[in-house]
Amino acid sequence: MFEIEANDRKTEARAGVLQTENYRVKTPVFMPVATKGSVKTLSNHELIGAGVEALISNALLLYLKPGIDVISDAGGLHRFMNWKRAIFTDNGGFQAIREEFSPVFSKKGITFSSPFDSSRHLITPEKIIGIQEVLRSDVALALDDCPSYGTGYNRAEDSVKRTTQWAKRSLDVKSREGQLLFCIAHGGVFHELRIRSAEELAELNFDGYAIGGLSIGEPKKVMMEMIEISIKAIPREKPRYLMGVGSPVEVLDAIARGVDIFDSAFPTRNARHNAVYTEKGKYNIAKAKNLMLFEALEEGCSCYACKHYTRAYISHLMRVYEALGMRLVTLHNIHFMERLMRNAREAIVTGEFDEFREMFKNSFLS
Amino acid sequence: MFEIEANDRKTEARAGVLQTENYRVKTPVFMPVATKGSVKTLSNHELIGAGVEALISNALLLYLKPGIDVISDAGGLHRFMNWKRAIFTDNGGFQAIREEFSPVFSKKGITFSSPFDSSRHLITPEKIIGIQEVLRSDVALALDDCPSYGTGYNRAEDSVKRTTQWAKRSLDVKSREGQLLFCIAHGGVFHELRIRSAEELAELNFDGYAIGGLSIGEPKKVMMEMIEISIKAIPREKPRYLMGVGSPVEVLDAIARGVDIFDSAFPTRNARHNAVYTEKGKYNIAKAKNLMLFEALEEGCSCYACKHYTRAYISHLMRVYEALGMRLVTLHNIHFMERLMRNAREAIVTGEFDEFREMFKNSFLS
Repeated sequence: MFEIEANDRKTEARAGVLQTENYRVKTPVFMPVATKGSVKTLSNHELIGAGVEALISNALLLYLKPGIDVISDAGGLHRFMNWKRAIFTDNGGFQAIREEFSPVFSKKGITFSSPFDSSRHLITPEKIIGIQEVLRSDVALALDDCPSYGTGYNRAEDSVKRTTQWAKRSLDVKSREGQLLFCIAHGGVFHELRIRSAEELAELNFDGYAIGGLSIGEPKKVMMEMIEISIKAIPREKPRYLMGVGSPVEVLDAIARGVDIFDSAFPTRNARHNAVYTEKGKYNIAKAKNLMLFEALEEGCSCYACKHYTRAYISHLMRVYEALGMRLVTLHNIHFMERLMRNAREAIVTGEFDEFREMFKNSFLS
Repeated sequence: MFEIEANDRKTEARAGVLQTENYRVKTPVFMPVATKGSVKTLSNHELIGAGVEALISNALLLYLKPGIDVISDAGGLHRFMNWKRAIFTDNGGFQAIREEFSPVFSKKGITFSSPFDSSRHLITPEKIIGIQEVLRSDVALALDDCPSYGTGYNRAEDSVKRTTQWAKRSLDVKSREGQLLFCIAHGGVFHELRIRSAEELAELNFDGYAIGGLSIGEPKKVMMEMIEISIKAIPREKPRYLMGVGSPVEVLDAIARGVDIFDSAFPTRNARHNAVYTEKGKYNIAKAKNLMLFEALEEGCSCYACKHYTRAYISHLMRVYEALGMRLVTLHNIHFMERLMRNAREAIVTGEFDEFREMFKNSFLS
């Protein structure tokens, strides 16, 4: 199911293949988010052209809209979206427990308000597994309890306890052959709890292990420590998935610590807020000086936006809020991220990941 | 410059070719609007794939943003947009004199507030020609005075008078070889004024004649009368352009009266508001019943949206306000309009336009 093809010489980085029901996903992999069943503004063919191997969608949001009856009748999420490569589905816990949805915890699960119409819904570990089995995603995620950044030790300890209980209940009800099930390790910013969570989950023999509750406000140094601690407790042969991290440098630093899988709305959301990614760093395309630059968003990039339009034109589109502008910058940023992952993988295979990472950082942060 | 290739047997419809500096535009033609330099959500390759022969952009809005220095430095609007087929530029008078921009008329021209930052600007017939010459559009439009629907005879008479004066001043300053210049006939809903305006302008020997101030609230019957009256006074050998009309049936009815060129934001704006065009009429894609229809937006359509996605999926996207939904429906509606124009042209060439129109209306309005 998960095969490690190469280990880097100096770092913990590894290159692997995650064989899912629908696709062989080369790792390290970055997944754009298709929260509601679409990567904002982009078509499937554009995603494939960028080299996207897997998307992550949100089971809970799809359960609310369009509803799982619709996706069941479509024959699953792949058919509904007409996406033939891998799909991960997030469990939606991260959304459900945000304060604005007034979450209430009970032994059964979490009750929360729908972001669409404020109706109250109960999600349980069992129900979330059931939803994801109907969605037929390649990889399902067991319900977790993800506290906000800044909550204290006691809340973090509760989350660890609850997450392990929920993970067990998820395994107990899982029934779909072929669908992989990952759990999500927690522990806030507390060493001891991170170890405990990962160790408890490691005993349960999931198909893969996510690390959750990071990149939500903590300092970067703390995040990297938590990643290292968590990974030590996760079986080597299992894929490791760092949730919600998508800044290029953080992705490379996490790969160096042994992470295989990433997802983040960052490159796409940033695109809609004018940030263009290049090897030489990010820049704000809406700044007026771009209006006079009749060159590609990034020199040497082969994406549709870079091949057919200028910075000047795209800058104009963004400055007057034309949807095509957001689409072109989103497409470019996804191309950038996927190229970064391919290059990272190649460097791991040749044993030169650390050098690659240093070079990239020197250029990107200069 | 304009060649009539065929006249329909029963109606005034004709099939022609408008040879511009950049492209041979087959008429009748429908132009999607690229007001600020982009057809909302669509790429150039998608427009070409739909068979779009010409776009219309807005000279005044481009003058305000990004500014004509930018487009001049780019080498003109074609290069700025990377669009190689024809571009018409509207003069922006229609925008400038909307009440919210506090227009003030003087002998020189119109002073109005920018929709972007409320700064005051003076536009004159001479300035608008100058702007369009810098933009290097294929077809420029002389500044006109377009009163709102419901204004009385005196205001309409003033508009006719002013429009003729401005048309003369526009011809006087025009200097760019190769760029065609059209004027815009007015006269409100008054027979006598429509005749007077068209006759006065006809004497001035423009490259083409637009009919303005229609489809702004008047009954459809009145609109068709005004078109007939205006066209009688326009030289037969000149292209006739009905501005702002884009509903499929009205387009066909205007073609039957001898109109060659159309533009409208209707098919694209409608798409963003959930209206899908089909041979069997329009429908609202956001209605819940579409969620269970796992078929194309329109059976038999060859557009990307119809070939790769279902009504159910696109309905879901529209219901959760995903940008990809608007993009796919916009693409479909543009395909629909361009196919309609190709079919209309073919029917004219074979002398069966009236039958084609009846069949289309029976199906579309059923």
